[in-house]
Parts: sequence; C-alpha cells; structure tokens
Amino acid sequence: MKKVLLSGCHGRMGQVLQNIIKDHSELEVVAGIDRNPIQKADFPVYANLSEVVEKVDVVIDFSHYSAVPALINSCVAQELPLVIATTGLTNETKTMLPVAGQVIPIFYSANMSLGMNVLIKALQTVSSALESDFNIEIIEKHHNQKKDAPSGTALLLADSINDSLAKPKEYIFGREGNDLENPLDQMGIHAIRGGTIPGEHTVIFAGPDEILEFKHTALSRNIFANGALKAAEFLLKQKPGLYSMEDLLT
Amino acid sequence: MKKVLLSGCHGRMGQVLQNIIKDHSELEVVAGIDRNPIQKADFPVYANLSEVVEKVDVVIDFSHYSAVPALINSCVAQELPLVIATTGLTNETKTMLPVAGQVIPIFYSANMSLGMNVLIKALQTVSSALESDFNIEIIEKHHNQKKDAPSGTALLLADSINDSLAKPKEYIFGREGNDLENPLDQMGIHAIRGGTIPGEHTVIFAGPDEILEFKHTALSRNIFANGALKAAEFLLKQKPGLYSMEDLLT
Amino acid sequence: MKKVLLSGCHGRMGQVLQNIIKDHSELEVVAGIDRNPIQKADFPVYANLSEVVEKVDVVIDFSHYSAVPALINSCVAQELPLVIATTGLTNETKTMLPVAGQVIPIFYSANMSLGMNVLIKALQTVSSALESDFNIEIIEKHHNQKKDAPSGTALLLADSINDSLAKPKEYIFGREGNDLENPLDQMGIHAIRGGTIPGEHTVIFAGPDEILEFKHTALSRNIFANGALKAAEFLLKQKPGLYSMEDLLT
Amino acid sequence: MKKVLLSGCHGRMGQVLQNIIKDHSELEVVAGIDRNPIQKADFPVYANLSEVVEKVDVVIDFSHYSAVPALINSCVAQELPLVIATTGLTNETKTMLPVAGQVIPIFYSANMSLGMNVLIKALQTVSSALESDFNIEIIEKHHNQKKDAPSGTALLLADSINDSLAKPKEYIFGREGNDLENPLDQMGIHAIRGGTIPGEHTVIFAGPDEILEFKHTALSRNIFANGALKAAEFLLKQKPGLYSMEDLLT
Repeated sequence: MKKVLLSGCHGRMGQVLQNIIKDHSELEVVAGIDRNPIQKADFPVYANLSEVVEKVDVVIDFSHYSAVPALINSCVAQELPLVIATTGLTNETKTMLPVAGQVIPIFYSANMSLGMNVLIKALQTVSSALESDFNIEIIEKHHNQKKDAPSGTALLLADSINDSLAKPKEYIFGREGNDLENPLDQMGIHAIRGGTIPGEHTVIFAGPDEILEFKHTALSRNIFANGALKAAEFLLKQKPGLYSMEDLLT
Repeated sequence: MKKVLLSGCHGRMGQVLQNIIKDHSELEVVAGIDRNPIQKADFPVYANLSEVVEKVDVVIDFSHYSAVPALINSCVAQELPLVIATTGLTNETKTMLPVAGQVIPIFYSANMSLGMNVLIKALQTVSSALESDFNIEIIEKHHNQKKDAPSGTALLLADSINDSLAKPKEYIFGREGNDLENPLDQMGIHAIRGGTIPGEHTVIFAGPDEILEFKHTALSRNIFANGALKAAEFLLKQKPGLYSMEDLLT
Repeated sequence: MKKVLLSGCHGRMGQVLQNIIKDHSELEVVAGIDRNPIQKADFPVYANLSEVVEKVDVVIDFSHYSAVPALINSCVAQELPLVIATTGLTNETKTMLPVAGQVIPIFYSANMSLGMNVLIKALQTVSSALESDFNIEIIEKHHNQKKDAPSGTALLLADSINDSLAKPKEYIFGREGNDLENPLDQMGIHAIRGGTIPGEHTVIFAGPDEILEFKHTALSRNIFANGALKAAEFLLKQKPGLYSMEDLLT
Repeated sequence: MKKVLLSGCHGRMGQVLQNIIKDHSELEVVAGIDRNPIQKADFPVYANLSEVVEKVDVVIDFSHYSAVPALINSCVAQELPLVIATTGLTNETKTMLPVAGQVIPIFYSANMSLGMNVLIKALQTVSSALESDFNIEIIEKHHNQKKDAPSGTALLLADSINDSLAKPKEYIFGREGNDLENPLDQMGIHAIRGGTIPGEHTVIFAGPDEILEFKHTALSRNIFANGALKAAEFLLKQKPGLYSMEDLLT
C-alpha cells in the first residue's frame, strides 16, 4: 500500500476522498493537513507539511487555491510527488507548475474527472471531421442552486471543440425570435436548471440526416476524488515533470 | 371503404396524405379539391366542393387558412363531416367552428399529431402534483432552417402546463450570468437548432433527487396526415358537434 | 412542528430520512424504534412502540418486513397514523392494511417515490390511446451490483401499462435472431447494468413516424424518504382509512 | 462540375442519391447503369459500363453485391475511380479490392454514413482508457419491420470497441434472473424495436459515479448517399489505392 498525505482533509472533497479510498487496494491515507488541524480523522492531522512525521509516498491536495503555492514549495523541498485537485488556481500559481515539474512529478488538470477528460479527448478527435456540415450545440443541466450559467465545464468543452476547428464558433446562450438564421458558425450553449441534478453535459453534432451526441453524466462529486486517486497512482510511476489527465489517458 | 374528399390535394401535406392512405384499410380518397385543379392525381380534382360529383363520406382539409371559411360553408350546406388539418386559422374562422358544429360533425385541433396530443394530456395529468417541488424546463430541437424560436409547439406545451398549475410560470429563453436564482416560478424554454432534425420536444420536471422527462420525437410530417386520418375515422361515428384530439383520446 | 416516531431509525433508509428531515419545515423526529436500540441518534431510541414516552403525531416505518405486523397492531392500539415505507411485505401483512384502516389513517405504496407514482399515473392516462398503433418498450438502468433483472419497478410499470390495455402485452427480456416479427403484443423490457447508476426507467411508445418517451431518473435513495415525508404530511390531515400515493396525487 | 456515373440508378438508394445530388455544388450524374436499363431518369441509362458514351470522372455504385465484381473489372479496364456503397459483398469480392487499388482509386467501407464512422473513431479513441472501471453497454433502436437483432451496425460498434480493449468483452443480448453478476467483461447489446424508427445506436460507458454516452441517430437513408458523395469528392483527389471512411476522416 502506497501512503498518501491528504491536504485539505477536513474540507468537503477531503472527506469524499477519505470515503472513496477505503475501498482502494493500493492507496491509503496516513496523514492529513488542514488549516484547522483538529484530530477527528482516522489519521493524524497537521497544520503544515513540515510538521508531518509519517513517511509519505504522494500528496493529494483538495485545499484552497490560496494554500497551493506554499504546498508546492514544500513538496519541492521534500521531493514529494503532488496531485493538485484544488480548483481556481491563479495564473501566478499556474506558472509555478512547470518549474516544480523540473524537480518533482506534479499533476494538474482543469477538471479532475476521468470521464470528462475522456469526453474532451473524443471531441477533439471528431470535431474537425464534422465541421463543414454539422451544427454544434451544448446542453448542460445542473441543480437549481447553481448561480452561474453556463457551467465552467460547458465552456471548457466549447473551447476544446473550438481549438479543433478551422473556424471557431461564436457562443450564444439561448434563442428567441422570428427571423433566426442559425448559421453553422454559431454554437448554442443551453443551461437547464432544476432540482438536485449533479451535472450533465451533452454535445450535439446535428448534420444532414444524422445526429451525433456525446454525453457525460456526473452522479456525484466522487468523480473528482476518483480522478485524484487515478492521478496519484499514475504519478507514483513517473519521473519529475508536469502531468495532466491528457497524459494519464494516452 | 369510406370515401374521402381531400381538400388541398396538390399541396405538400395533401400529397403526404395520399401516400399514407394507400395502406389504410378503411378510407380511400375518391376526389380532390385544389385551387389549381390540374388532373395529376389518382382521382378527379375540382376547383370547388360544389362541382364534386362523387359520393363522399368525409372531407379532410389540408389547404390554406384563407380557403377554410368557404369550405366550412360548403360542408354545412351539403351536411358533410369535415376534418380541418390546415394550420393558421384566423380567430374569425375559429368562431365559425362551433356554429358549424350545430349542423355537421367538425374536427379541429391546434396540433394534429396523435402523439403530441397524448403528451399534452399526460402533462396536464401530472403537472399540478409536481408543482411545489419541481423545476419545469422545456428543450425543443429542430432543423437549422427553422426561423422561429421557440417552436409554436413548445409554447403550446408550456401553456398547457401553465393551465394546470396554481401559479403559472414565467418563460425565459436562455440563461447566462453569475448570480442566477433559478426560482421555481421560471420555466426555461431552450431552442436547439441543427441539421435536418424534424422535431423533438422534451419537458423536464427536476425535483429533489428525481427527474421526470416527457419526450415527443417527430420522425416526419406524416404524423399530421396520420392524425387527420384518425380524426376522419372518429368523425364518421359522431353526431354533429365540434370535436378535437382531446375527444378522440378520451 | 408535528412529531414523528421513526421506526427502523438505525437502518440505511432510517438514516437517510434523518438527514432529509433536518431541512423540513413541518416535521421533526422526536423518537426512534430499532431492534438494536443503541443511543446514537439525536433522539431517544426504544426497542418497541409501547416503551415510547414522547408524544407522537405520526409513525414512519423503514424497518424490516417481519417487524411490520407488530408495528401495525401497536399503532392501532395507540390510534397513531402510520406510514409504511418498508418494502417486501408478505401477502398476509398486506391483508392487515385495510383492517387497520378502519381505525387509523395508514399509508402504503409499492413504490414510495413521488416521481415514480406520477409516472405510473401518466402511463395509465396515455397507454390505451396508443395501444393500437404503438410498440411499447421499457429500458431500465441500474448499478452493476444489482442481482435481479428486470428491476421490480420496471415490472411494476409494465403491469400498470398492461392494466390499461384492452389486450395486455407479453414481456420479453432481450432480442436476438434473424427472423423476428416484433408484434405489437410483445413488450421488450431491457435491463442495462453498469457502474453506480442509482436507477433510471424509460417507457418508449414507438408508432407511425412518432415516438413518445416517459423517463424517471432517481438521483439517490433520498426519493423514498422524501416520499415518506410527503405521505406523513398527507396522513396527518386524513380520517382513518388506507391510503396510497395515488390518493396523495389526486 | 465533376461527372458521376451512377450504378444501380433505378434502385432505392440510387434514387435517394439522385435526390441528394441535385443540391450538390461539385458533382452531377451524367449517366446511369441498371440491370433494367429503362429510360426514366434525367440522364441516359445503360445495361453495362462498356456501353456508356458520356465522359465520366467517377463511378458510384449502389447496385447489388452480385453485380460488383464485373463493375470492379470494368472500372479497372477504363481506369475509372470507383466508390462501392453496395452492402453485403462476399469475401471473394472483398479480396478483389486491394488488387483493383493498385490500378485505380477505389473506396469501400462497411458503413457509408459519415457520422457512424466518426462514432467508431471516437470509440476507438476512448475505450481503452475506460476499460478497467467501466461497464460498456449498447442500445440500438429500429423500426418493428426489422427482422434481425442486434443490428449489423451494433455488432460493428461492439467489434470496434473490442478491438481497442486489452481484454475483449463477451456479448449478451438481454438480462433476466435473480442472481446476476454483471461482470465488467460482459457487454449487453439491447435491441429495441418499435414503429418506424430509422435507426439509433447508443454506446454507454458506466463507471464509478459517472456515465459517458455516445449516440448516433439516423434520420433517413440519405446518410448513406451523403457518405457516398463525400467519398466520391475525396476519391477524385487520390492516387490509385484502396480507401475507406477512416482515410476520409483523417
């Protein structure tokens, strides 16, 4: 069993990861870090990486974007592999990643779900072949407490598609009127809100007499913890470098 | 075999009906009416109902809204049952319908598709039970040549739902922003446009930990001709009166 | 706030109900019963209803089918309204229900989800109108740990549809071959198994050039607890009698 | 405008292609071949390629598998590029293809739909990354007159996926029972039959807390004619060789 240090262990995703890892055959959490280091977990919890006395093979971070720069520096100092699953990193923090990758194996992706990254890869494979004849539209569904629309993931999908096209499409966020042209270079992105839907994203390619649809359904937040564990397993076998889900999927 | 007089026989839907009726076991077209009465069908074609010499059991109309008032008057004069499948009737024409219904069996519905009317009936059955806990959203998909959004049928569905609710919902036609409230009294109606999609309407009820979806898919325009034939069969058994798909489904 | 006695409080669904009820504005749990009456909940837990000293307005039962007969008798003796959300009742226990209903308000449904019962009601409204022209098929999806196929709920849906038809359909559970007839009086019921899918049921009516689909998606087991709370609220306003989700939806 | 010779011009797909090509900006049919060479098309029709007097740039074949060997030989003799869109070729005929490809550009694919080939390519891109944690299931829907189940295309998809996996899965065609294990190395292929559905194929990857779905919907048989025209445009730019949709999509 490889030994994991869990950063942000008392947060929501930290707790999700603890639940998931119990059934994992190759990884176990041996220590935690949290800005509020109370002892309520199955392992000792510290305020900083420098205090940790347990032997550790890899660090998984689900903390807060403001805590990430210090964590990167500590991991570099101790030569520990690091999976960053925290979201919202600043651009300044992002510039630290390739530098750290010269010393340690470090992993970062805009979305930690395995399935979502597989979807992005599939979209990049197919989009250009369909570009000249097919309209592309995205439907995303989330719970009614979500404040933003469209979702960040819908925009990530749209941008990934646009990166594959000879002529990127312009996004629109709804349609109403009596004299619409619906040109091929428009991409409608439609945000459905209702109940407690965890998250669903569908990309539709509608062309002459055929339709292709690519859909991802999240059943819970566990997928981000699952992805972090996959990344940790992967990172344990790598040399120093900056890695992402794209490398894991190759 | 009951004998049908087909009004608007050279139009697009008139031709669709001729194709469909060939496989019908109880109905056959014995004569046609068209404003351009050229002889290119399998039956004689006339300019007006008054010229028709064949014995007729029922009239099916797929002509033009401007031709409907004269047709109603002729059917009343000859005491012929009449199915009006033409769309876009003026309010003035609509007021003629119950009057004619005092003399002849007459049939009119805003949408002639059997399935769409079944969907409306189902929605009216369930909407009030879900009103207090579920967001209601509609997604409709059509080909990219469709100029209007949302579709008239999507609005018909939305209005049918609102008729069943204690507190009708306000329609919105897209979402974009960072501080959305998504209240229960909003109904998002989302128009997807692409390729050659004939028509798809989905009503989503999303509530606490469960989702209900009701979806209608049109595979072709045949559904309006199918509905007209169902209506003709039904009308042949009725006394004078004004009937709609709702009566047929009871 | 009305006071709930929760039977089977330490079981999986008992715990789910405790989580759900925390956000409920009209109901609170004031005591529990469990065959293992350890004190680990936010309320006192007893082995039997007769020991409960708290004043109680309604009993919700998520225990075990073998415990239900004694619970019914105790509720009748103390004239307490009872919601039975336990599944797998024996036929003998079911015969007790109308008898108890002569003394107390008592609630029982084969499926406690509000949405699933709304779906059943919709299917009963529409099935006969589509009978003569539409094939009916059911697809259900569940996690890969589910041992039985098709799901009990899929069969409940199929039976509900058959109850509405002039000529009930014969169930088949897959198709393979080169000379299939696919007659209208067959109903295919297809069980998809994969990952951790909580539960999805789709009824498809496929006819001449149109398709109607009715789909229920469960996002978690919470829906059974939600349904039990709805039933409790409903029961508090009723006279003695045996009630089901059908009454709640009327 | 490049000049097309249409083989099998009086057959069903030959007629579909004639309708489609009318709106095409780069291709036109200048002559036809049919075993029944009556003159009812907008171009002269011959019994054999050797009789054709018009100058031709490319041949598109929608005839009958038994007519293909002679056609290949004639195209080789006259050094004409050939798109074979006829299905059901014998293995013997298939062995002629690479030989002919040494002299002329020749195009053949098991399925001529652009979208279906894009789907296959996407599946081959993603399947191996999901292999260890996700169940894979296929649902296909067709009209009730279809005699075979599952569809040839569903098997083509399943085989394409299996080609990408370290451990190919075993196909099953339905589930029924009370003690099912649903192992990862089973692939359920489910055939839904109803009404006039032209054709729908969905591949489901269901894993830990997430689901990926890849769906192709055919709206009509036009897609095979569309694919043949795409292939003809492509072939006009190629050197001698045997090509398939995979080459067109690269």
